[in-house]
Amino acid sequence: MHKQCGEKLWYIPDGYIPEVSSGELTSHESICVLNTSSEGALIKITIFFEDRDPMEDIMVVVSARRTKHIRTSSLHLEGMPIPVGVPYAIEVRSDVPIIVQYSRLDSTQAENALMSVMAFPIK
Amino acid sequence: MHKQCGEKLWYIPDGYIPEVSSGELTSHESICVLNTSSEGALIKITIFFEDRDPMEDIMVVVSARRTKHIRTSSLHLEGMPIPVGVPYAIEVRSDVPIIVQYSRLDSTQAENALMSVMAFPIK
Amino acid sequence: MHKQCGEKLWYIPDGYIPEVSSGELTSHESICVLNTSSEGALIKITIFFEDRDPMEDIMVVVSARRTKHIRTSSLHLEGMPIPVGVPYAIEVRSDVPIIVQYSRLDSTQAENALMSVMAFPIK
Amino acid sequence: MHKQCGEKLWYIPDGYIPEVSSGELTSHESICVLNTSSEGALIKITIFFEDRDPMEDIMVVVSARRTKHIRTSSLHLEGMPIPVGVPYAIEVRSDVPIIVQYSRLDSTQAENALMSVMAFPIK
Repeated sequence: MHKQCGEKLWYIPDGYIPEVSSGELTSHESICVLNTSSEGALIKITIFFEDRDPMEDIMVVVSARRTKHIRTSSLHLEGMPIPVGVPYAIEVRSDVPIIVQYSRLDSTQAENALMSVMAFPIK
Repeated sequence: MHKQCGEKLWYIPDGYIPEVSSGELTSHESICVLNTSSEGALIKITIFFEDRDPMEDIMVVVSARRTKHIRTSSLHLEGMPIPVGVPYAIEVRSDVPIIVQYSRLDSTQAENALMSVMAFPIK
Repeated sequence: MHKQCGEKLWYIPDGYIPEVSSGELTSHESICVLNTSSEGALIKITIFFEDRDPMEDIMVVVSARRTKHIRTSSLHLEGMPIPVGVPYAIEVRSDVPIIVQYSRLDSTQAENALMSVMAFPIK
Repeated sequence: MHKQCGEKLWYIPDGYIPEVSSGELTSHESICVLNTSSEGALIKITIFFEDRDPMEDIMVVVSARRTKHIRTSSLHLEGMPIPVGVPYAIEVRSDVPIIVQYSRLDSTQAENALMSVMAFPIK
């Protein structure tokens, strides 16, 4: 058995899907999850907004001993994606300990801009 | 009732509002707050400088189960904004636990640059 | 004797070696290790993927009271490098406490983009 | 008396002063210190290298209730600056608790790239 590492609950307050892409790469965000354990992780992602109720419990699976770099634009709840061009925040809840990092590539202009943070863990 | 997550006191040592914008986006900073609890959060922001006394207790409200991405250029104390082009630092104090991230978009030149950090929590 | 600082196990979920470089600088990632102690550090790096088994225990040495900024493209396991253009995650395990930061320079387009995070420590 | 916040010892493994600047802004790094307490902070900065002994105990003062954004290019030990174009790492030691963030602006190419991390605190 491989050791479980990390925490089961993580937050990223600054979520934002840019509306525009130009140049060679597409603007996108990734929620990067690492599951070091010998068990698959069932992950529930909740999206918080400034002016409406949260989108709760979007499900994602990350297999044992695998990473998954989840594009936020791929997430749907009852067929609805996360709206673009709107400030939001992200909760990542897992049934086994995981480690979570968030990165954004903004290609609104032809040259790219990158940012990344380790998500904030709740113990 | 939803669980309160995070801390009540956070710091960001590197604040700076760029003086210049070019290209399609405006240079700006955001203090991104997430309030996961079932109560509204009353937030007091204090700005520290290199060569003068702090601007203390600028008030902001973040509703229950909501995020707010606060543009630093929108903050005022007795009608005075945070000066542009000056190094400063930020304290974020809340009456309920919150999670705080800081991001800056610099469009001094036509192509954008992005940076982001999780603020530093005091337990 | 100098004090040992940091932790022995660190994680970086968002690893990615860009396929393309342009302009004056080459796209690359660095795993930046600081060993403040009076003993050399023997480091084992494991690479996790989305769809295949990990590459385990790539060895690196960081001398006493030295830093090493390790290019991920320089890492090999039985002659095999980390594949480019593929999402992955990084584990850094050391026999003495160290501090680990991860940075990426993306020059896919002529102008550069930079990101950096402190790796996530396991206590 | 204002409360002391933060830690007395912080590390930044990825230091690097770019050799080249172009465009409107100069490439630089800043060690951003916030001293929330009612006492001045005496700070000793040590620079670690890949292939030579550390430069130890460069002194900087940060006044009570002030921030200081220290350009690494301004630091000298016995008249010697930190060399440019060389990987290094940074230790920041203070006699009172402080909070430390590190940011780099790279203008090697005309358009800027930005990165920032909270330094790693030792408790």
